Amino acid sequence: MTREPASTLSAVTCGCLTPVLLATTLLALSPCACSQNSDVRNIPARTLPTPTTVSPAMQAEISKSWDGSTKPEHLTTQQWKAQIQKENEPEAASVDPMLKQFHVSLQQSKIAGVPVFLLKPETIAPQNRNRVLLHVHGGGYVVFAGKAATPEGILMAHYGQIEVISIDYRMPPDFPFPAAVDDAVAVWKEVIRTHAPASVGLFGTSAGGGLTLATVLRLKELHLPLPGALMAGTPWTDLSETGDSYFTNEYVDNVLGSYRGSLEADAKLYAGSHNLKEPLLSPIYGDVSGFPPTILLSGTRDLFLSNTVRMHQKLLQAHVRANLLVFEGQSHAQYLIVDDAPESADAFHEVAAFFDQNLAK
Amino acid sequence: MTREPASTLSAVTCGCLTPVLLATTLLALSPCACSQNSDVRNIPARTLPTPTTVSPAMQAEISKSWDGSTKPEHLTTQQWKAQIQKENEPEAASVDPMLKQFHVSLQQSKIAGVPVFLLKPETIAPQNRNRVLLHVHGGGYVVFAGKAATPEGILMAHYGQIEVISIDYRMPPDFPFPAAVDDAVAVWKEVIRTHAPASVGLFGTSAGGGLTLATVLRLKELHLPLPGALMAGTPWTDLSETGDSYFTNEYVDNVLGSYRGSLEADAKLYAGSHNLKEPLLSPIYGDVSGFPPTILLSGTRDLFLSNTVRMHQKLLQAHVRANLLVFEGQSHAQYLIVDDAPESADAFHEVAAFFDQNLAK
Repeated sequence: MTREPASTLSAVTCGCLTPVLLATTLLALSPCACSQNSDVRNIPARTLPTPTTVSPAMQAEISKSWDGSTKPEHLTTQQWKAQIQKENEPEAASVDPMLKQFHVSLQQSKIAGVPVFLLKPETIAPQNRNRVLLHVHGGGYVVFAGKAATPEGILMAHYGQIEVISIDYRMPPDFPFPAAVDDAVAVWKEVIRTHAPASVGLFGTSAGGGLTLATVLRLKELHLPLPGALMAGTPWTDLSETGDSYFTNEYVDNVLGSYRGSLEADAKLYAGSHNLKEPLLSPIYGDVSGFPPTILLSGTRDLFLSNTVRMHQKLLQAHVRANLLVFEGQSHAQYLIVDDAPESADAFHEVAAFFDQNLAK
Repeated sequence: MTREPASTLSAVTCGCLTPVLLATTLLALSPCACSQNSDVRNIPARTLPTPTTVSPAMQAEISKSWDGSTKPEHLTTQQWKAQIQKENEPEAASVDPMLKQFHVSLQQSKIAGVPVFLLKPETIAPQNRNRVLLHVHGGGYVVFAGKAATPEGILMAHYGQIEVISIDYRMPPDFPFPAAVDDAVAVWKEVIRTHAPASVGLFGTSAGGGLTLATVLRLKELHLPLPGALMAGTPWTDLSETGDSYFTNEYVDNVLGSYRGSLEADAKLYAGSHNLKEPLLSPIYGDVSGFPPTILLSGTRDLFLSNTVRMHQKLLQAHVRANLLVFEGQSHAQYLIVDDAPESADAFHEVAAFFDQNLAK
């Protein structure tokens, strides 16, 4: 049964906005807040003020426009590599200043043959001496190789006062799915030779959030021990364009813009011949029963808000302890992009507190 | 420091959408995804498909159009009363069928002189024998007097297997702020004469969520004991039009539509001569330190998404245990409006589990 509310009134009363007389023979109705078609709703053009309810640092980012760029389809391998290099370079260049700013040391190494970055904060909290966090970076499963993998790990090491191992997993075009999952699993198997699994956390944002969840699905398949806790920041849980906020926050999110920005091309390149809805690509279709406690992050403008809240509900339905944080005004992953806003510190502190509550010592 | 992402590119590359040639002498550019003005961003008109990621019952509600109705300003008292009666009637008429459907009994009574409805489920769970939940209804602080106050209480009693006392607090035009808060406090003082405060929960949705939080602020001022736990469903925490989703979800939310639907008029009628940002009107401006554990609910299309997540963050910053649920595709309070969708059962079960975890037995 559905009770009254206002929305059940007939479309006759509906508030179409600002009919515009454009020429004597042309009466163009501007998009209307209501639709006669029950399958789609027409939402009129709007202006969004910069929210006054976030810090000045976050306001500066939120007020920016989406660049509107879309990745062309059918790039050649060489074109992909050029595009990836172009996106990696500024991110990689940010790493040394960040290490200095956040007092974190970086050491390159390999674990199980996979390149990793060992990130150590100036101070390790006493309760974290036997704990470590494994990090899998974002970037659509395509970009942010090498040092560009590490900024989120640097922030986590700093705010959490905990050692982080950031995994520089293989990526397309040379190494599509499931290379990334395989690398994360290989590192996991090696790390738990020297650490209690329950004292190790796994985390990442965007593709890294999706990879965090996919890796745990794969560990379950392999009957391997699971991490003690997870952080899935605005996780790419559905690589197909399925989920409400792909539409409601289209163009509202100024980082991702639209599925047709770079997501569609990245998803296809990463998945190769696999169906985008395979659970290890789109963990929303996986069986999350028995998952470790998981904290999920998103923002009110995030194109991945539905990717995040759908997974949160799925975890709760499976009786997994799952906490959700949604940040005011933020588009995709802005707690990570604006790395010195107070909201970003809040985000990492809340994630650190969650790991502290849920990881064995 | 803000690192790269796409959004820092210049507006020269920005993706203005579908220029439309309307007449030979008129080239109208449709709204553009990017703006030259750093204070506002222009979001183009869009169509929203009905999400495939919710149940058919919820799809049916989500696909409806906002009715576009706005309350006229400057209604007379008699006009207000007529309007209120018109909105109350269908809600009140839904109560008897709901009582039957959900196997809940209703008894009218008074506590501390305030009319209340005692709502008892067919079965009270063993752990809930000494517990009770106080309910304050929504309706913009203006509508849903009398039996229309009770539907949320009926659902909570049913899904939670717990006794609910629904408070039929006084409302404008005859009794503006702070009558509602005073009535909730009066009932509270009487209820805790016979119940341990820690075994009593307080909850409500929309204005009822705001009133839940405002009541606790008032209890703090009065140095009275606080409830054991709270549920604030898509709470109206900011009666002024402040918060990002008032803009991002304007017209996207098909229940409230816009602040200029009925919210603005309701807020002004309720507040009377008081400033909308007084904490007992807009609890987001209050001091929430020491608050009981609180669960908050919203939806991805909810005009009150920011009202909800801002309060969630504020509670976390004050070291209050606070859980957030955001439901896929839902506009304002649709877990309550579509009362037999599986998502609605999920919502009430999750709230019931939260009360069970946090209330003393």
